[in-house]
Amino acid sequence: MRPPVIILVRPQLGQNIGKAARAMLNFTLADLRLVAPRDGWPNPEAGPAAAGADDVLDRARIFDTVEDAVADLVMVWATSVRPRDMVKPVTTPEKALGEARSLAVKDQSTGFLFGPERSGLTNDDIALCDAILTIPVNPDFGSLNLAQAVVLVAYEWYRLEGEREVWKGDPPVPKGELDGLHRQILAELDAAGYFRTKARRPVMERTLRNLFSHARLTSQQVQTLRGVVKAIARGKPGK
Amino acid sequence: MRPPVIILVRPQLGQNIGKAARAMLNFTLADLRLVAPRDGWPNPEAGPAAAGADDVLDRARIFDTVEDAVADLVMVWATSVRPRDMVKPVTTPEKALGEARSLAVKDQSTGFLFGPERSGLTNDDIALCDAILTIPVNPDFGSLNLAQAVVLVAYEWYRLEGEREVWKGDPPVPKGELDGLHRQILAELDAAGYFRTKARRPVMERTLRNLFSHARLTSQQVQTLRGVVKAIARGKPGK
Repeated sequence: MRPPVIILVRPQLGQNIGKAARAMLNFTLADLRLVAPRDGWPNPEAGPAAAGADDVLDRARIFDTVEDAVADLVMVWATSVRPRDMVKPVTTPEKALGEARSLAVKDQSTGFLFGPERSGLTNDDIALCDAILTIPVNPDFGSLNLAQAVVLVAYEWYRLEGEREVWKGDPPVPKGELDGLHRQILAELDAAGYFRTKARRPVMERTLRNLFSHARLTSQQVQTLRGVVKAIARGKPGK
Repeated sequence: MRPPVIILVRPQLGQNIGKAARAMLNFTLADLRLVAPRDGWPNPEAGPAAAGADDVLDRARIFDTVEDAVADLVMVWATSVRPRDMVKPVTTPEKALGEARSLAVKDQSTGFLFGPERSGLTNDDIALCDAILTIPVNPDFGSLNLAQAVVLVAYEWYRLEGEREVWKGDPPVPKGELDGLHRQILAELDAAGYFRTKARRPVMERTLRNLFSHARLTSQQVQTLRGVVKAIARGKPGK
């Protein structure tokens, strides 16, 4: 398994390098490469912004040129908010990271190129890439910052690892326990003379079933509701 | 079409409010709500950080409580990196924003709650929500910052623009109507002398909130339940 490499091309602010490192590690990416960082390397402003992702910074590799930085990679995407007029396939984060993952599991290294904060990647940079990854943004407000672009790419990497939806907490209640609650409410309504016509009772029964079956209640919650019904039915202490 | 609302609960730094506004507008979200921002509002540090998304800040609405901020919303997600041990369904950004979109196309308003930078949402905040949106992060490095959490939610909103699924069935009830049901039940329990110690009342309140927010009730169902509570409380005809 070879997770993709994040390559910052001529980054300007040490703070943004640190933020990018943090964003990477949030989503398990750890291989950072810097091409000709403006203020040299190491940069004292990167560490604090990394907020604990120092390991990523310490192991970052520095290159003079993009060519060198991508030499060992089998596929490289240029990230860009607005694709230039170039003959390159343009793809979404989801598709690009899906491809990166399918290569990673075959131990093939891939990379994502991010341009300088102000100007973005040049046509020469992009020419070294296989495709352009375009993050879909508001056409009227597309000023995504560097760390945010990195976090979205890293997030897509991790998201595709496997959708894990987890049911936290207790399992839903067996239907029999729910029935007990329905019967109790109906009995109290009977006692209160709620049903003026017999026909309304099955309608209410169905309504209650629909309502509580939706609710995915736990046993504890059913017990609480039964206590509530009992207490309200008993009425005022002096009654 | 009603895009979801972003609700920052007790945000601490104006800078983060600005960054959140920028992240929202990058992905076409424009409805920002602030609950009790620590340093008041407006905050002079928000504007520069918004980097042009001033409109979102100018139109932000301020609330004293989370209850007020979500009163008109039919479905609310609590965002959290690590779900607490609570009885709420836990879902992914993709699923949650898919649901939000299916409600948006039916002109139903939804919202996403983000907690304060340091401490996150409280259990009382979460009790007001229908589900917990957990952003899947590196289990060994999960310190996602506020603006990054917002950008990921906003990104998922925009990413799913192509995939419109329509909400099946009746729309869920606005939170304000649910609150009426909670208050009615608590009032009846008060009248019945149910709470022997004052401390138990807020526990019951949270329990009821959790329970009914799960249920995705319709307005009709809430009315039915209110009628049931009233009838049972009134008690036997001869009493």
